[in-house]
Amino acid sequence: MKKLSHLGPAGSVRMVDISSKSASVRMARAAARIRFSRAARQALEEATLTKGDAFAAAQIAGILAAKQTAMLIPLAHPISLDQVDVTFDWESDALRVQAEARTTAATGVEMEALVAVSIAALTIYDMAKSLDHGIRIENIELCEKTGGKSGSWKRSR
Amino acid sequence: MKKLSHLGPAGSVRMVDISSKSASVRMARAAARIRFSRAARQALEEATLTKGDAFAAAQIAGILAAKQTAMLIPLAHPISLDQVDVTFDWESDALRVQAEARTTAATGVEMEALVAVSIAALTIYDMAKSLDHGIRIENIELCEKTGGKSGSWKRSR
Amino acid sequence: MKKLSHLGPAGSVRMVDISSKSASVRMARAAARIRFSRAARQALEEATLTKGDAFAAAQIAGILAAKQTAMLIPLAHPISLDQVDVTFDWESDALRVQAEARTTAATGVEMEALVAVSIAALTIYDMAKSLDHGIRIENIELCEKTGGKSGSWKRSR
Amino acid sequence: MKKLSHLGPAGSVRMVDISSKSASVRMARAAARIRFSRAARQALEEATLTKGDAFAAAQIAGILAAKQTAMLIPLAHPISLDQVDVTFDWESDALRVQAEARTTAATGVEMEALVAVSIAALTIYDMAKSLDHGIRIENIELCEKTGGKSGSWKRSR
Amino acid sequence: MKKLSHLGPAGSVRMVDISSKSASVRMARAAARIRFSRAARQALEEATLTKGDAFAAAQIAGILAAKQTAMLIPLAHPISLDQVDVTFDWESDALRVQAEARTTAATGVEMEALVAVSIAALTIYDMAKSLDHGIRIENIELCEKTGGKSGSWKRSR
Amino acid sequence: MKKLSHLGPAGSVRMVDISSKSASVRMARAAARIRFSRAARQALEEATLTKGDAFAAAQIAGILAAKQTAMLIPLAHPISLDQVDVTFDWESDALRVQAEARTTAATGVEMEALVAVSIAALTIYDMAKSLDHGIRIENIELCEKTGGKSGSWKRSR
Repeated sequence: MKKLSHLGPAGSVRMVDISSKSASVRMARAAARIRFSRAARQALEEATLTKGDAFAAAQIAGILAAKQTAMLIPLAHPISLDQVDVTFDWESDALRVQAEARTTAATGVEMEALVAVSIAALTIYDMAKSLDHGIRIENIELCEKTGGKSGSWKRSR
Repeated sequence: MKKLSHLGPAGSVRMVDISSKSASVRMARAAARIRFSRAARQALEEATLTKGDAFAAAQIAGILAAKQTAMLIPLAHPISLDQVDVTFDWESDALRVQAEARTTAATGVEMEALVAVSIAALTIYDMAKSLDHGIRIENIELCEKTGGKSGSWKRSR
Repeated sequence: MKKLSHLGPAGSVRMVDISSKSASVRMARAAARIRFSRAARQALEEATLTKGDAFAAAQIAGILAAKQTAMLIPLAHPISLDQVDVTFDWESDALRVQAEARTTAATGVEMEALVAVSIAALTIYDMAKSLDHGIRIENIELCEKTGGKSGSWKRSR
Repeated sequence: MKKLSHLGPAGSVRMVDISSKSASVRMARAAARIRFSRAARQALEEATLTKGDAFAAAQIAGILAAKQTAMLIPLAHPISLDQVDVTFDWESDALRVQAEARTTAATGVEMEALVAVSIAALTIYDMAKSLDHGIRIENIELCEKTGGKSGSWKRSR
Repeated sequence: MKKLSHLGPAGSVRMVDISSKSASVRMARAAARIRFSRAARQALEEATLTKGDAFAAAQIAGILAAKQTAMLIPLAHPISLDQVDVTFDWESDALRVQAEARTTAATGVEMEALVAVSIAALTIYDMAKSLDHGIRIENIELCEKTGGKSGSWKRSR
Repeated sequence: MKKLSHLGPAGSVRMVDISSKSASVRMARAAARIRFSRAARQALEEATLTKGDAFAAAQIAGILAAKQTAMLIPLAHPISLDQVDVTFDWESDALRVQAEARTTAATGVEMEALVAVSIAALTIYDMAKSLDHGIRIENIELCEKTGGKSGSWKRSR
């Protein structure tokens, strides 16, 4: 049976030792969807029609949080980031948030992309919550990753 | 039509001014669900059977992140926290993460509970990701809040 | 001769003890001006004509930095913030950045307003620096403060 | 017409992707001037005559802030720092603060030097503000930079 | 038998709920001793004879760390701090570091004083370590605390 | 006579310039001992018999603090960390905390190991302090280091 890599032989948590791995270019892309009430969605669409500051704030929050990943996720390695990008798209019934992170490091950049997308989505929630406490963030997930020894991975659908 | 409280008249983002509000005891409870592949779930159950360190790490990460909410969510007010609690329960087909936050402040504590639950869930993801890149965090949502002028709110289901 | 309040009898730095002071509502407003080359100013005006994201990013950076004042300025007291607002205006020959901070605390909020305006201005610099390394941030200064025992103060011109 | 490098095609802010650039040694030097009332200047000179702790505090604040640049300036890349140095000199009518930062990285170190000098100057302001609310920080500017593809640059005067 | 207050009924860690406690003035004083080799002690004494910057740096580091206690100690409550003071004294065979912290809060300030003294001592270590890797920090301990329901406590010797 | 490397010619503190040093694999191991009253020790042993969460919390706190070393110790260089591990062992009369840190960097990793062990020990203190204010953290010290130009070092006993 497979084991969790972050748990040592005696069951204690541990950072995985990456000192024998060499740096390479890596990318990860993650996404989330935010589902609003009709009123909250209308207010957000209206607000961003004329001025995109609500999205700009969420984008900045996501980028800054990605840079703090190793402070937030206890066993994540501190890595440099070559780029982080956060984007927003309206889908038929939800707002889709995507983040892409790039690094040249000895370990992957999935957690950075996932943290970016989560904090960006929570920032949208924060801005719309006075209109709708029931907003729901759905399906925070990795979409794709490239680089590193374990190679590329892409979500099947 | 309703407006977003975090956007000023000209569409710029802003912190809401709370200097005229008085402090009161407030509580918020939020939740998320994490859906694993069978292999990842088995490994996590196995690991936490003998020693709960994977959950303890995620719990600590959630509590620490809640205390950093105002650094992560741009327009959130810095508030003191009287308590933060993070718990885990296995549901039939997923792991349920819950966080409860309490404050005595002039503004609510929803974002703190939502940040706690999100970072705790991402920490679980980080620990299990070597077994399953497809893990999905679903339904980050507010469950209940009490206190404050706008009064109590509870998710209908 | 007057003494610096942050230096103790033997010349060592110290935080001023505010435990005997009571909390009251306080406000501070600070400003800075940024002077660009013609090329950098044109690019920034052009960019913000269609979409205000450059200013939104600087505004968010200023607000977040204000909330971290006590981590940046060694002898500043950690205080809660009821509001922080950052605005931008084109003057004849410069971009004017203003920040207003409000608190209900036992000490003033000048440093929070000054930190907000400084980091917002540096963020604008960062965005325009590829066009003009010679951008200069001028006249970071307190404009006005109200509240507290020492009372109101306003810059004479 | 030139474009801002931090804005994407659609006007959204973005981190510039540096994954194709290679690391090299880079240096940046920045400066600021602080103008005091006579009373504040006398008190600061007096205090630092016998014991340099006011300047040491500002120097430490500047060095620590330089190391947090990527947390403060949203689109700055997190980079390692080989050295940061902050110095103070009395000019005829002002206190001059200078910072020099060095890195071995794929991007420049200007923002780190500018953040160091700004926070060091604000720390001096904080220490002297009880004597003079009108203290003004003037002319935060880059003095010189070396290294990187765009080569060396030096302020003309 | 007594129980640890930070562990819940099922053995999980938790923050203690302080929402029913009222704020009062509290003080805590902590200390540490640092034992050097003769060479390191001489170098430090020599350096601080002419200029106290080594101690000023450690003092600032201790004060800043105290303000970050709730980010460092997972179950500590975020509290405001009315004052933090860090001092140094040569004893016959060691350097004594002391820190005193004050708050007006619903919980004690012991951890803030202990964090201040620990990080100040580690900063001294950092400055002297090139001369002596064997420096030892001894006896980090609470000396005294006042305020709060559990009342005053003073180390017996 | 030897000089402190962190003090410049004029006695000011400075970061040592490491831009001419090349990166290599380095390790440092540090330790501390915590001495409890009988009651506090019994409660901690009892608590960790059934569930190791008290130790897991301290371990996570130590790992996270190691990653923040350059924010806590003013003249420490920001470095990446390949691994941090924190462990606990009961000795006859005390709890021994050990931390091992690894990096691939141009400077050593002693401070990261020492910060990890100190914050882990303070977290244990925090959890047991309601039972015993007299808990003492003894002998924070470097045990061993390898790598780098100055070579390996091991505490003689």
